[in-house]
Amino acid sequence: MLLSALIERKRDGDALEPRELRELLDAYLAGELADYQMSAFLMAVFFRGLSPAELSTLTRAIVDSGARLSFDDGGPPAVDKHSTGGVGDKVSLILAPLLAAAGLRVPMMSGRGLGHTGGTLDKLESIPGFDVNIGLDRFRDTLSRVGCAMIGQTPEIAPLDGRLYALRDVTGTVPSIPLIASSIISKKVAEGIEALVLDVKVGSGAFLPEPREARALAHTMVELAAAEGLRASALLTAMEWPLGRAVGNALEVRESLACLRGGGPGDLREVTLELSAEVMLSAGVETTREAALATLAARLDDGRALERFTRLIELQGGDPGVVDHPDRLPAAPVRRVLEADGEGTVTGMDARAFGRAAVELGAGRRRAEDRVDPSVGFELRARPGDDVGPGDPLVDIHAASEGDAERAETALRAAITLGPGAPPRAPLVLERIRADTG
Amino acid sequence: MLLSALIERKRDGDALEPRELRELLDAYLAGELADYQMSAFLMAVFFRGLSPAELSTLTRAIVDSGARLSFDDGGPPAVDKHSTGGVGDKVSLILAPLLAAAGLRVPMMSGRGLGHTGGTLDKLESIPGFDVNIGLDRFRDTLSRVGCAMIGQTPEIAPLDGRLYALRDVTGTVPSIPLIASSIISKKVAEGIEALVLDVKVGSGAFLPEPREARALAHTMVELAAAEGLRASALLTAMEWPLGRAVGNALEVRESLACLRGGGPGDLREVTLELSAEVMLSAGVETTREAALATLAARLDDGRALERFTRLIELQGGDPGVVDHPDRLPAAPVRRVLEADGEGTVTGMDARAFGRAAVELGAGRRRAEDRVDPSVGFELRARPGDDVGPGDPLVDIHAASEGDAERAETALRAAITLGPGAPPRAPLVLERIRADTG
Repeated sequence: MLLSALIERKRDGDALEPRELRELLDAYLAGELADYQMSAFLMAVFFRGLSPAELSTLTRAIVDSGARLSFDDGGPPAVDKHSTGGVGDKVSLILAPLLAAAGLRVPMMSGRGLGHTGGTLDKLESIPGFDVNIGLDRFRDTLSRVGCAMIGQTPEIAPLDGRLYALRDVTGTVPSIPLIASSIISKKVAEGIEALVLDVKVGSGAFLPEPREARALAHTMVELAAAEGLRASALLTAMEWPLGRAVGNALEVRESLACLRGGGPGDLREVTLELSAEVMLSAGVETTREAALATLAARLDDGRALERFTRLIELQGGDPGVVDHPDRLPAAPVRRVLEADGEGTVTGMDARAFGRAAVELGAGRRRAEDRVDPSVGFELRARPGDDVGPGDPLVDIHAASEGDAERAETALRAAITLGPGAPPRAPLVLERIRADTG
Repeated sequence: MLLSALIERKRDGDALEPRELRELLDAYLAGELADYQMSAFLMAVFFRGLSPAELSTLTRAIVDSGARLSFDDGGPPAVDKHSTGGVGDKVSLILAPLLAAAGLRVPMMSGRGLGHTGGTLDKLESIPGFDVNIGLDRFRDTLSRVGCAMIGQTPEIAPLDGRLYALRDVTGTVPSIPLIASSIISKKVAEGIEALVLDVKVGSGAFLPEPREARALAHTMVELAAAEGLRASALLTAMEWPLGRAVGNALEVRESLACLRGGGPGDLREVTLELSAEVMLSAGVETTREAALATLAARLDDGRALERFTRLIELQGGDPGVVDHPDRLPAAPVRRVLEADGEGTVTGMDARAFGRAAVELGAGRRRAEDRVDPSVGFELRARPGDDVGPGDPLVDIHAASEGDAERAETALRAAITLGPGAPPRAPLVLERIRADTG
């Protein structure tokens, strides 16, 4: 009776006392509050939100439900990045070894692709042999030897988040800012890091396309992290079209390698450097953004970041030969070039449509249990702002079959706009949100 | 995926197509939609409501989930009454035999007390031997021999309602007008009646105390019933203080017997006659309210209604001797008189507080599995509008123990107000709502 009264109070817009919310969550963990009660509570939260005190209580309960790592050993600051998910967003693959090369530790726990956005684990697994489930002991060992390690969520960390997310996923309660914020921040707190940078995407390919909502999520996360003793800041970054030129797991690893060699698309390098600089400032290892950017650019250009990535692949069971021979990465049997059928400037390449088309090719998942095809995806031959004429290549499609390639061509053609003018030119980094700017 | 997308659309305020909502409900019945998904959907309905088409679809799905009775046999019109629940509301016990005596058939399916309001089944069961679970065959037989029969919800009728209600009860999704309306009207449609009167209580003791909400519920139910081919109207009736003088199961049976003899409290007689007249008009067996009221008053005063009730008790296994010897009803061991401690006019006897105090005595349930004590309750010795002086009796408390009586006295004293003026004098019937007045 008491527990359902708490659901009623949240439904009616009351903020629960921390001990009341904690009682509800503890009862859920103990099996005394049923899934059907929790899902009703979560839907009430969708409509009513959570107070700052409730948000902290939920976040702490998630942290307390599992193990909490610690890197409080006098070694380099442990830091991490989290992205709300984008199309062609392979920043983590570059950022982790880059920050390691810059003297930080990056114990990164990532996710898989779901919906139209890709996932770091899927990209890493396109490297033959790479194991993202090495367990916490090897994770710590890799971290201490390379400066970074990249794994999936482990059952030891924040198990309550796993239960809540599985429930939210099938009950229409995913897109709630406090629920998203508590899910992300609790896992980062449990990771034991001391500084975090959040990449909150904005635009058609973003989970929350509207700047207003993305900004609200960023503020909520930054303030929540601060309340939990984690120094965090957020960048709002553009996701109107894919980041970089590659979309699809092995193709994105290949592009990440190019970036780690000091090359690669400019937008990808810029976003990676900005996010990396931001977390260096939060961790207190650099005092100005300019100095951080200079250090980081040097680590890309001198090959030290690539060296870390090579070592990481090796220690996590992958084939380090892919670094020098990217043709060892899985390749799709069918290639098709999507050509422009008119003349003009590319004014748009709708990121969400590209993401969905990639999922249709098999690069992502329609259901959590689907298997991903590492080889398929797209390479953008032209990008927004480029002038093209009839027959000019726009996109290379990598597909498992002619039929798939055909369908992707149709989908992408509808997602690319040519016009007489230039595309709207927004900066890549739209806004910086720090705890003291809240 | 599709089913959770329907939850998301309802969450976002879309009206589902009838076939979509039906698919969701059918999947729930088939075990393909989990309880945790349905409870999230119900919470979304709490916030977003249901369109008229959705409301009809839900109602029909509940009806279709079980058996549907029919009285389409050329016999008298089958009618029923439903009350949203009050304190001291024993109208059903009088109305069913009264309408039977007036030539109608009343196949009444009622509920138990829950919360601060009493339930018809609990009151009937205070008659020694009375069986409210006689099964549908004996129900039909009793009905054909007496003109009325009174049972509980059977598993054959509207099983989906039972499942949804059990879920709503523990997930904070009870007080939703469309969910209440579909639950009530579906069961009445499945009962096979052709006319229905709804008694929607207003005031402190009502489920929905505010007139605006009560009116909205009444309109929703009347229109929904009309859409399902059931002629219904609603009266909004006052529930600021208990109806009649008795609160508690056996005490209310005793008062009902007095009313069936042509006596009893005036407010109880008036509400019973007004509701009965209303359903006679809907059934088309009388053409004016005045004529209906005259017929009904005569059936109370000439003993024919009481005769029907006696016969009903007999056929449902109860001791018909209670009619002439009400002292055969269970009596509480402890009696205590709550006396006025000052002088003035009784200006209020808060119905909800009386209802809660009755539950504390054991007359109602704190949990669905609690047992009810038929003997305990209250008799109002004074009523709002009466002038009293120090030491004058206000309430007779019937309790199982001195301690219970003591606690009840404290609770009731706080619920009774004495003042210099008269209480706000609202009519008993505040409003009449018919399908064509919607």
